[in-house]
Amino acid sequence: MIRLLYISNASPAVSEEQVQDILTSARRNNPAHGITGILIHGGGLFMQVLEGPEQKVLRQYVKILDDRRHDDARILHISPANSRIFEKWSMGGIAGNPLQFQHVSDLFARRLEVVQPTTFTKTMREFAQMLNAGK
Amino acid sequence: MIRLLYISNASPAVSEEQVQDILTSARRNNPAHGITGILIHGGGLFMQVLEGPEQKVLRQYVKILDDRRHDDARILHISPANSRIFEKWSMGGIAGNPLQFQHVSDLFARRLEVVQPTTFTKTMREFAQMLNAGK
Repeated sequence: MIRLLYISNASPAVSEEQVQDILTSARRNNPAHGITGILIHGGGLFMQVLEGPEQKVLRQYVKILDDRRHDDARILHISPANSRIFEKWSMGGIAGNPLQFQHVSDLFARRLEVVQPTTFTKTMREFAQMLNAGK
Repeated sequence: MIRLLYISNASPAVSEEQVQDILTSARRNNPAHGITGILIHGGGLFMQVLEGPEQKVLRQYVKILDDRRHDDARILHISPANSRIFEKWSMGGIAGNPLQFQHVSDLFARRLEVVQPTTFTKTMREFAQMLNAGK
């Protein structure tokens, strides 16, 4: 199971009714995929958490990328999870600017930060050397 | 830009020729998406690294999930990246069991480990409380 949090820019034309449509649709479809989570909308932004089986969550996220009610979606957090935080919510809804929440704001500010454990990078560079050697 | 590393079980029927087909196809298609990386095949496993623009990499990964030449794909590493390690390779190929590489093997052993920074979890629980309070 994984948990994915993304933030995106709401389309300027998006109405409160459309946000309700998104929630209704998510609540109808998510149980079959074992997905739970939350959608926050406000301040011209969407923030959504999807938690569930890894492949289901990723497939759902890629579908969400094509939704015209937002754009510039980018992941702020993705990690394995061994339990659900939103287990009661096929998709909870909160009105408000996601960046008003300190930790969301922190993740947003640091989203370009690179986490590169040295051993991982070393291994990847070894692979690159092997490729070059095989030329 | 992100870097994603997954491992999967090769279909028992997969031939060396099919692995070459995968590489040929990746090398033809990846440049248009700005994707570079490496594919390692051996010991009944595939391991692949995809690096490139976040949405392109995720879309490509979801397509890869549907490929019948493997199954049970799971992500071992995903993180932002500010530079490419495989910049010269639209898709490099190495023959060998991915688990022979110490760091890959470590990631594999730890893949169920949960990385949950406390502040992140706290924020998520706050959201869950807000949802419950709104009931």
